[in-house]
Amino acid sequence: MFPKMDALGMAGAVPRAPQQERSRVTRARLLEATVECLVEQGWSGTTTTLVATRAGVSRGAQLHHYPTKAALVMAAVAHLADRRATEIRAEAQALPTGPDRLDRVVDMLAAAFTGPLFVAALEVWVAARTDAELRGALVPLEARVGREMHRLTAELLGADERRPGVREAVQATLDLLRGLGVANLLTDDSARRATLLAAWKQQLKGIVNS
Amino acid sequence: MFPKMDALGMAGAVPRAPQQERSRVTRARLLEATVECLVEQGWSGTTTTLVATRAGVSRGAQLHHYPTKAALVMAAVAHLADRRATEIRAEAQALPTGPDRLDRVVDMLAAAFTGPLFVAALEVWVAARTDAELRGALVPLEARVGREMHRLTAELLGADERRPGVREAVQATLDLLRGLGVANLLTDDSARRATLLAAWKQQLKGIVNS
Repeated sequence: MFPKMDALGMAGAVPRAPQQERSRVTRARLLEATVECLVEQGWSGTTTTLVATRAGVSRGAQLHHYPTKAALVMAAVAHLADRRATEIRAEAQALPTGPDRLDRVVDMLAAAFTGPLFVAALEVWVAARTDAELRGALVPLEARVGREMHRLTAELLGADERRPGVREAVQATLDLLRGLGVANLLTDDSARRATLLAAWKQQLKGIVNS
Repeated sequence: MFPKMDALGMAGAVPRAPQQERSRVTRARLLEATVECLVEQGWSGTTTTLVATRAGVSRGAQLHHYPTKAALVMAAVAHLADRRATEIRAEAQALPTGPDRLDRVVDMLAAAFTGPLFVAALEVWVAARTDAELRGALVPLEARVGREMHRLTAELLGADERRPGVREAVQATLDLLRGLGVANLLTDDSARRATLLAAWKQQLKGIVNS
């Protein structure tokens, strides 16, 4: 039998002591609930009480693991970004090699930038703009997440960034996708996005594969 | 003498009756103060009371012109978008023709997408995502503003959108700039943006001028 996937979608890890394992599951539930709350209620509607209720975790346990809304939200952004990277990497392994691969990679990334984690992260970015304490914590985290996303994208595209223009094209892809994520906030922008990305994929192929 | 620029930055219009003129100035002050509040305090920190105080307008006058926060914010987004378009158009008239023009146009647009109006609009977009009433009012307004911004950009770039790929390239430029605007929210991203846009301008020239 294959090892069962656990709650974080990772295959059988080193066995943990029961208490450690319970804490890990509690934290994961709190972080998932935080993202769900941010997506459904927005930043101002997200409270630690609501998150604890939603996660089915006692208020005491929530306060023990994440004493403030800022702590909860930072941990949620970091945890979900790692999880998204793991999922993208796993999905990419199933992609065919060959000329269609770049198209599929861009589609996968576009799905990530229009999905719940992007929406939750945007809520936090915008709140952090006018909240100095939150911003102080978020800036280094976002720098790390941004670097990892860039590295992952370059790797999946098979982009050799030592060649002129390639690094900028990988960056532009991510900035374009971020802009498309915002354009999708209030209405379904998928038809326009598909046409636009079809053109961008051709351009990107010209730069990455030339 | 040249006609003086009035509070909206528009040159000498048709003379108005004094009462009409006072109302127009009051509205303009309220709308400018709304954008300043959104930029400094964010959506949740923006209140109609704060805006009236900041504009130096009585609470009664504010309620008369814009009875709710939603009305104030919608009018501010529409008013400032029109004003930004007017400013961009005026600035573009001063640009040289020739090979550098496209670079300057992209720089002007990038400045708009990292300026206060973008930040204020983003606050409103994100708030509207989880506020059905606000979203209902904002979606048609944003559709109009988006169409006008697209038309203005195509015009300034001298882009013939009947040619294949040109329309998508103009759209991608605006989506890229929106993504760069978000990337600039928490930290000064200008150095990275300049390098990325230098590469983008070359690409865009290839498509628009080919």
